[in-house]
Amino acid sequence: MIASQPAWQPQYARREPRMRGSDIRELLKLLKRPEVISFAGGIPDAQLLPIQRTRAVMDRILADPETSREALQYSASEGHPPLRNWIADHMRRLGVACGEDNILITCGSQQALEFLGRLFITPGDTVLTEGPTYLGALQAFAPNEPVYDTALGEGSNVTPEACRQAAAQAGGRVSLAYLVPDFANPTGRTMSRKARLEHIALARELGVPLIEDAAYTALRYDGANESSLLALDIETCSDIDRSCIIYCGTFSKVISPGMRVGWIVAAAPIVEKLVLIKQASDLNSPLINQMCIHALAETAFDDLAERARSTYRTRRNAMLSALAEHFGGDARWTEPDGGLFVWMTLDDRVDASALLKVALDHHNVAFVPGAGFYPGDGGVNKLRLSFSQSTPEQIGDGIARIAAAYRELMQRKSRLT
Amino acid sequence: MIASQPAWQPQYARREPRMRGSDIRELLKLLKRPEVISFAGGIPDAQLLPIQRTRAVMDRILADPETSREALQYSASEGHPPLRNWIADHMRRLGVACGEDNILITCGSQQALEFLGRLFITPGDTVLTEGPTYLGALQAFAPNEPVYDTALGEGSNVTPEACRQAAAQAGGRVSLAYLVPDFANPTGRTMSRKARLEHIALARELGVPLIEDAAYTALRYDGANESSLLALDIETCSDIDRSCIIYCGTFSKVISPGMRVGWIVAAAPIVEKLVLIKQASDLNSPLINQMCIHALAETAFDDLAERARSTYRTRRNAMLSALAEHFGGDARWTEPDGGLFVWMTLDDRVDASALLKVALDHHNVAFVPGAGFYPGDGGVNKLRLSFSQSTPEQIGDGIARIAAAYRELMQRKSRLT
Repeated sequence: MIASQPAWQPQYARREPRMRGSDIRELLKLLKRPEVISFAGGIPDAQLLPIQRTRAVMDRILADPETSREALQYSASEGHPPLRNWIADHMRRLGVACGEDNILITCGSQQALEFLGRLFITPGDTVLTEGPTYLGALQAFAPNEPVYDTALGEGSNVTPEACRQAAAQAGGRVSLAYLVPDFANPTGRTMSRKARLEHIALARELGVPLIEDAAYTALRYDGANESSLLALDIETCSDIDRSCIIYCGTFSKVISPGMRVGWIVAAAPIVEKLVLIKQASDLNSPLINQMCIHALAETAFDDLAERARSTYRTRRNAMLSALAEHFGGDARWTEPDGGLFVWMTLDDRVDASALLKVALDHHNVAFVPGAGFYPGDGGVNKLRLSFSQSTPEQIGDGIARIAAAYRELMQRKSRLT
Repeated sequence: MIASQPAWQPQYARREPRMRGSDIRELLKLLKRPEVISFAGGIPDAQLLPIQRTRAVMDRILADPETSREALQYSASEGHPPLRNWIADHMRRLGVACGEDNILITCGSQQALEFLGRLFITPGDTVLTEGPTYLGALQAFAPNEPVYDTALGEGSNVTPEACRQAAAQAGGRVSLAYLVPDFANPTGRTMSRKARLEHIALARELGVPLIEDAAYTALRYDGANESSLLALDIETCSDIDRSCIIYCGTFSKVISPGMRVGWIVAAAPIVEKLVLIKQASDLNSPLINQMCIHALAETAFDDLAERARSTYRTRRNAMLSALAEHFGGDARWTEPDGGLFVWMTLDDRVDASALLKVALDHHNVAFVPGAGFYPGDGGVNKLRLSFSQSTPEQIGDGIARIAAAYRELMQRKSRLT
């Protein structure tokens, strides 16, 4: 009887082939060798995590009879009211007049992106993005079977009509736009005020929501903050509840990624819909994490942000110096004012995946090849370098190793031709 | 210019009208009055939460330089390996031979249900359930626009052919089945071994995955455990990687709902797909929560489960006694062997929503009307009573109040007729 039982072959939903892994996360698994200098993962330095503060806050929450019981019980899908209020204050400091009803707490901003895709994208619809863009956003939107139009970005002069026509040709309509205006992943670029206003106008004319992914906004190392898309839009429409901008923030880059606490700021009617999605998805974010993040944010957000900026600024400077020293005219790269990434463009003939193989196998250094950040083709000769997890010395050493790998690859090429 | 700016009207995805809130969660918001005895929320008693143990474990995690840094950083989408291994051991004790590769950690079992709907349901597909069933499952599946066929349940003699035909008539195919075999929400009923085998055979003949929602399994107050659907299926197919049963477990009922830690046990190829969904949805569950739950499970799962059983058994007994005392022949109700719920059926002429209004307004007692637990029509004269959050004295008092509300409603009716 056992032998005759046929193996069951699962039949998945139509959307299943769209669900693909991140090459980066696969790559990170290979980087456990301590001799490898990794510029791959765009994650905070664990040395900056506020461990002692977290320990004290957790103990306080769990020592109090009332907060401890709340912390370990089910809680509101919307999120912890004091944390929502802190975020509303924080957003007001960023020029966004809003209240608790405009805030939803999510499990990191990744969950925010997944919820927004689910709320707005019908299969076949077009999502407007930059190319390249944050790979995790593409993964978050994928189950909704969108088509991508990479028409956005600094200097884009795409018209609403062109976007509409392309979407109609793809069999749907434009239903969403997505941008990382500050220190973008993967390029490190920051959008000018002019480009921000143009993109808001485009979204308004198209009548679509524009997601502002502000994951890196607190990490500015030089210059003055640009106004957020949401703040700029509210200047025009005068009320967040009339705005088409949906802002996604996170505590992952400044306090702790492991707590998984992010947030959405949007018009209250949109937040109401998102609360239903939150309820259906995981009932609520863990309250103990929200209480802990609230206490840390209230007492230490500015300190922690300043400590992160100070550390990462030095590392960015080290990376830019090392690139100038070791690559000179052989490549171009962005010079980010903040965030975690430098985006590098190599000679047209170089495949960054081939370079990575040489770099990892012969030189113990890692980065992320650029092609994975494009919804379609592109980026073969580009790569992303994160400076967040290495000391200035390691950064100098690692860039020298990439340069050596690059020379090795170019020599091989010249032997072959 | 401000005045002329037209208000932006968001246009949502086609699936949006399916996303609806839980009447229960709306109801719970109304129950803050301390004079109300509530049988509404099916949630653990906060008195049973292991607060001191959690405090000690959290402190140990955050005092250790290595675990603290890991705990607050990004982590594996699959989940914390020691916790996955503990769960694999736990499942083996329940008769399910499985390994770490068969386990995914989720943010509560609600997230498990949402992921499974996303993986298996194409819009228009039919999902087989019981009627009534867990409302949260219906909410989790809703974004995928399924059709429901409530053909399942003890004593159902539905055939695969009938399910296929009904699904085809609804414009799709059967793509998923969902059951709560132990102490179901809302009925409290437990499925017999015979019915379990019949439902497994049905799923196998249809070639669809059958979700086993085991949220309440550890809370048995009388009698011997029934084998899980997954254990029974493995007896036939000999290998979990050939099984069509997908088991969803949770620590919410025994350790803490607030930690939001649940799990899926399934064939490894299905878990691989679910890991991609997890990655796209929220990257990973908070590692600090997983470490904490692991330490508590390892040292105290059996103790905590026994303490919960002992407390809830007394409360169930109190509720059944009070129902017999106050309702006699006026109603029928289930006598659950475990879980948190009694399901009550009133006179056909009674609308449980009308009864709730009288009960809340005049008698300060609450429960959940039954109609919300049906994917389609039904349950108007039924209601769900949870005994988990009230002392035996409150339970006796609360049931007496519902009986008084019931008499008041019936007297009004007889005056009207």
